[in-house]
Amino acid sequence: MTVPLRAASYFPAPRSQRYCSQCGNVLTRRIPDDDNRERDVCDYCGAIHYQNPRNVLGTIPVWEDKVLLCRRAIEPRRGFWTLPAGFMELGETTAQGAARETREEAGAHFELGELFAVIDIPQVDQVHFFFLARLTDLDFSPGEESLEVALFAEADIPWRDLAFRSISTALTLYFEDRTRGAFGVHSRSLPPGVAAPVATVPSS
Amino acid sequence: MTVPLRAASYFPAPRSQRYCSQCGNVLTRRIPDDDNRERDVCDYCGAIHYQNPRNVLGTIPVWEDKVLLCRRAIEPRRGFWTLPAGFMELGETTAQGAARETREEAGAHFELGELFAVIDIPQVDQVHFFFLARLTDLDFSPGEESLEVALFAEADIPWRDLAFRSISTALTLYFEDRTRGAFGVHSRSLPPGVAAPVATVPSS
Repeated sequence: MTVPLRAASYFPAPRSQRYCSQCGNVLTRRIPDDDNRERDVCDYCGAIHYQNPRNVLGTIPVWEDKVLLCRRAIEPRRGFWTLPAGFMELGETTAQGAARETREEAGAHFELGELFAVIDIPQVDQVHFFFLARLTDLDFSPGEESLEVALFAEADIPWRDLAFRSISTALTLYFEDRTRGAFGVHSRSLPPGVAAPVATVPSS
Repeated sequence: MTVPLRAASYFPAPRSQRYCSQCGNVLTRRIPDDDNRERDVCDYCGAIHYQNPRNVLGTIPVWEDKVLLCRRAIEPRRGFWTLPAGFMELGETTAQGAARETREEAGAHFELGELFAVIDIPQVDQVHFFFLARLTDLDFSPGEESLEVALFAEADIPWRDLAFRSISTALTLYFEDRTRGAFGVHSRSLPPGVAAPVATVPSS
């Protein structure tokens, strides 16, 4: 019997990289011709390893006057509350990804609504999207990445126990729009320099 | 005198990869524990190489009743007309990247306006953002990736010679909003199966 090789533990590959994914040779950090910023360049096979920000997709799921939140079962910010959200996957649209995360993290049934907020977080190289969503029943339950799922009226939102600034920003915009009786599409950029983490996974 | 090693030619590293960027060993394509889709996994060092869609950022630069377009100097779609746009870089916001591309590709001076359109193109794993922009003078000139830059009234837009479907979609939405006298924020998804390419760089 052969036991397949396994690493002692697994981790998301960080942005810093040493070897070429195409040929396995050592990379050089330099500005390519016809470019104006440093990239990881393979001078053996010629592959240039561009890196780009990532999108995080989520929803604001609503039942009557309450919003659904999930308590995180994973780091970072384990035990803190979040809207259902996660990284955009290949092959999906922003709306499809937001719906997928809502099913995976909250086990919720809902009608997806319009795009509501686009929040830039350049210090972690992420853009967070939130879509409106209307729960169609109260049959929800925590997925593998959630400890619990619950509904909160505006007065009961655990503002001090929210996981990330993008979550508090999206909720604040939502309640403002609900109060004025009209929902727009909001574009915001979060400034750096606040203690609470803003990424939804270990920065990589 | 030593001549630094250089590859015969350079290319953007494609999404398919064989070697771990962290340790240089050969990757395995499999579903990691606690995941539900295949990733490139390094069973030697434990790095999991997630991949995510990329954002393309651009503007709709306007002077009076005319829109600025750039004729592409690079493939794909060399010689076709586009709004100034390009891939989002690390460390910038969507608005900053849209402004940077407008300076780089059109040499334009402008006041950046609001987010106007978010266009999903899942078949090439991209999300395209377009911001409104108002030119502040007529001093513009093609950058390295443009053959020429010119202003077009709505009646003169070269619809058949536009480079990508996201460009025609953004322009159509812009003229519709201008006609009704109010600009919103639009979210669209482009379906697959149309002949014209939709990516702004070689798919990777």
